[in-house]
Amino acid sequence: MPFDPSQLTYNADGLIPVIAQEKSTGEVLMLAWMNADAITRTLETGHVTYWSRSRNSFWAKGATSGHVQHLVELRYDCDGDALLAIVHQEGPACHTNRRSCFFTAIRDGEQVELMKPME
Amino acid sequence: MPFDPSQLTYNADGLIPVIAQEKSTGEVLMLAWMNADAITRTLETGHVTYWSRSRNSFWAKGATSGHVQHLVELRYDCDGDALLAIVHQEGPACHTNRRSCFFTAIRDGEQVELMKPME
Repeated sequence: MPFDPSQLTYNADGLIPVIAQEKSTGEVLMLAWMNADAITRTLETGHVTYWSRSRNSFWAKGATSGHVQHLVELRYDCDGDALLAIVHQEGPACHTNRRSCFFTAIRDGEQVELMKPME
Repeated sequence: MPFDPSQLTYNADGLIPVIAQEKSTGEVLMLAWMNADAITRTLETGHVTYWSRSRNSFWAKGATSGHVQHLVELRYDCDGDALLAIVHQEGPACHTNRRSCFFTAIRDGEQVELMKPME
């Protein structure tokens, strides 16, 4: 059956959460948001394009930094209200220059830094 | 530094998105939501407890189905507005009885089912 972005469920701002996962390692890199047009752009270009809530504009990941996310596959969940983008990430995914945005763990009530910025 | 759930950023409904990832395989299982109290319950009990937006109540994953998520580690992202729960999932994570909720891929504009319900 053909896919149409309008079949998904968006929040009041017209956005849906997107998990980016690195294909080669399985590492979860980040969580960001897309609107229907960002989904279409992502599928058409093969470069993951989010909607930036802070800048209120499309955010072609890596367009400025070079840290592009090449789309391997886009999946959606049983409720149609979340996306999983399997990607090949160039360089760090995080704006702090870390591989993943999820670099802080909670262990025994303490915050533990799991990784350092990449060189 | 001690962790306090109040340091995280919640949406207008007081919720934060949570990605559940299976420790043993790296598979992304689902995306759901927590409020600050659900985070505290999850950390205290070691059983992942979400906030159900449809039932407007705590949702101790597996309390009814037996498909418990044992917390291995809770992480949060650079902006403090998303969580990653590394878990050991008992049985299927999805209410459709599939391992993961992300069982549909978009390939060449078509929807492709990636996995069948577990026996």
